[in-house]
Amino acid sequence: MAARTARTVGEAGLIRLIARWLSVQKRDNRLVKGIGDDCATVRIRGRQLLTADSFVEKVHFRREWTSARGRRSGRDAGLAGARDAGWKALAANISDIAAAGGIPVAALVSLELPPETKVAWLKGFYSGLLSCARRYGLSVAGGNITRGPHLAAHITLVGEAPRRLVGRAGARPGDIVAVTGQLGGAVAGLLLLARGIRKGPAVRRHLHPEPSVRAGQVLARYASAMADISDGLARDAGHIAEESGVKVVIVPGAVPIHPAVKELSYEKPKNRGEDMLPGQWLDMLARHIALGSGEEYELVTTVPRRRFGAAVRALLKIGITLTAVGEVRRGRGVLLPGHPGPLPGFDHFQER
Amino acid sequence: MAARTARTVGEAGLIRLIARWLSVQKRDNRLVKGIGDDCATVRIRGRQLLTADSFVEKVHFRREWTSARGRRSGRDAGLAGARDAGWKALAANISDIAAAGGIPVAALVSLELPPETKVAWLKGFYSGLLSCARRYGLSVAGGNITRGPHLAAHITLVGEAPRRLVGRAGARPGDIVAVTGQLGGAVAGLLLLARGIRKGPAVRRHLHPEPSVRAGQVLARYASAMADISDGLARDAGHIAEESGVKVVIVPGAVPIHPAVKELSYEKPKNRGEDMLPGQWLDMLARHIALGSGEEYELVTTVPRRRFGAAVRALLKIGITLTAVGEVRRGRGVLLPGHPGPLPGFDHFQER
Repeated sequence: MAARTARTVGEAGLIRLIARWLSVQKRDNRLVKGIGDDCATVRIRGRQLLTADSFVEKVHFRREWTSARGRRSGRDAGLAGARDAGWKALAANISDIAAAGGIPVAALVSLELPPETKVAWLKGFYSGLLSCARRYGLSVAGGNITRGPHLAAHITLVGEAPRRLVGRAGARPGDIVAVTGQLGGAVAGLLLLARGIRKGPAVRRHLHPEPSVRAGQVLARYASAMADISDGLARDAGHIAEESGVKVVIVPGAVPIHPAVKELSYEKPKNRGEDMLPGQWLDMLARHIALGSGEEYELVTTVPRRRFGAAVRALLKIGITLTAVGEVRRGRGVLLPGHPGPLPGFDHFQER
Repeated sequence: MAARTARTVGEAGLIRLIARWLSVQKRDNRLVKGIGDDCATVRIRGRQLLTADSFVEKVHFRREWTSARGRRSGRDAGLAGARDAGWKALAANISDIAAAGGIPVAALVSLELPPETKVAWLKGFYSGLLSCARRYGLSVAGGNITRGPHLAAHITLVGEAPRRLVGRAGARPGDIVAVTGQLGGAVAGLLLLARGIRKGPAVRRHLHPEPSVRAGQVLARYASAMADISDGLARDAGHIAEESGVKVVIVPGAVPIHPAVKELSYEKPKNRGEDMLPGQWLDMLARHIALGSGEEYELVTTVPRRRFGAAVRALLKIGITLTAVGEVRRGRGVLLPGHPGPLPGFDHFQER
């Protein structure tokens, strides 16, 4: 029997299937009306946060559906890929709400898909999406489907704004620059995946990132500026510097490193950096992570000095570490003492 | 000098340009924070409407950028195409808010674009987008850009919900089925464009559709169900029938026809329908429009009989006609007396 595809079930059939997949969601009073109308209706008091992100095949993910062919188990690699893609697509949006210190409420999912897209893949994608939505207490409220030359999910999330709004523009000279958690786990996970390792915390962090929603909500009470680490610490701190009109100084050696990165690092000196001591290698690695590792789902924030201790304590209470990595000064841009030349960072349009 | 493209200005450069284009917008108190942060922040009282729509190159529009090459005038065909695309992309979303009887407040624009996309095209696109936003009193609050194999705009719109929520699910047997304005103008405009005619109300309606926001707001006080006509009257009435669990009967001869369609019809019998009287031809045409013409940006609504007169009068006061085209009965689906076979309609995934 041939696999069902978008073409064989048709647009109306696909919408019915998606409505059925979404119908398993727990009822949330903030979602007044979900899928089925021209609009979804929500009730969010105060101010509302809005964010949109795109998740494009071959740019942000690869559809490994060929590996699903012929297998009966729902746990095969292809479907796992679809579920991971669904989780990550929503997590990226949740991370933006986290960076604003808000509470995610409802998501709209606009899918662009080729007619030959398998229904099984879509089901896996929605399963991942819904599992992430459940984990963060939000509803998938509908969306849109359209034909396109490739698979892409364009997700919009609406959330409840915190009482005290925090953006990228509030950093002031003298503030402390800090990051939540530890960085580099996502990169380590990717390297482990490339070696065929599919388990462990670093791989999980890469495939199943957990946005810092609770950290963001706590930090919103203390921070002068906040952003999530999606393009790399240097670049995201650069956004704060630019919007605030200040200079951000980051001390690479102060960046907290994910344990999986340290494990990786002991293997490297065998064929690279032979003339370096392990400590020097680690420092170089830390700097590399500080500058370039994106998709970390941690937050970079600036906190006025007087409030820093209180912020650290409040986060520790919920089991999250906040580490000072630098300070805000008068000036422009990001300074990494000891690092020469222009800062690296992910640019969607330019060669690196 | 080579034209500037997404690749030559880079992601950061492009974001700066878009921020500059958006900065011309008038300040709106409902938009607390626009572009520059991880999220936009709005303040919408009561309940909020959410809708998302996609506008994909080669599916929903064609980028005629080659015709812009080497010309100095901002009014050349290529840029006009970009401006029209920008207007239409936003108008489609506004129409969903109109169908819910709401007031559009803020839009997020997620762009997917190939690195070779010309900055001039994007500028034209944003110019059309902003002109539509201005016309309907909403703000473009930011969005996202990402690389992709083709141009696509995924727009999300948030709006203020009416006091009385109207969706697709409220139609009851005995209600009158009605449409706002006149149908077929968009199709007539397309046919005229194909003949090289680039002026007149029908062409304008195709290139520059005007969603029925005011009609929707008035109708929300009277209607039992409402939808915009985006896929063709039969199909959109079908959505109401499905969600309400009723049968919708439409009398094709009762559908109000746009004058431009009637003008077109006098030319047609020369090579088609020779054995028909002009009146019969017109009736056939009306039925065709009733069934299949999408992108009309009018509304199809069901109104309880007792309220119908009041609804007609309230709309007339703002210069909009509401025409009864059928009624709601017990049963399922859409019935078009005199029309045999399955109903046509636009399906993104299936061949017609």
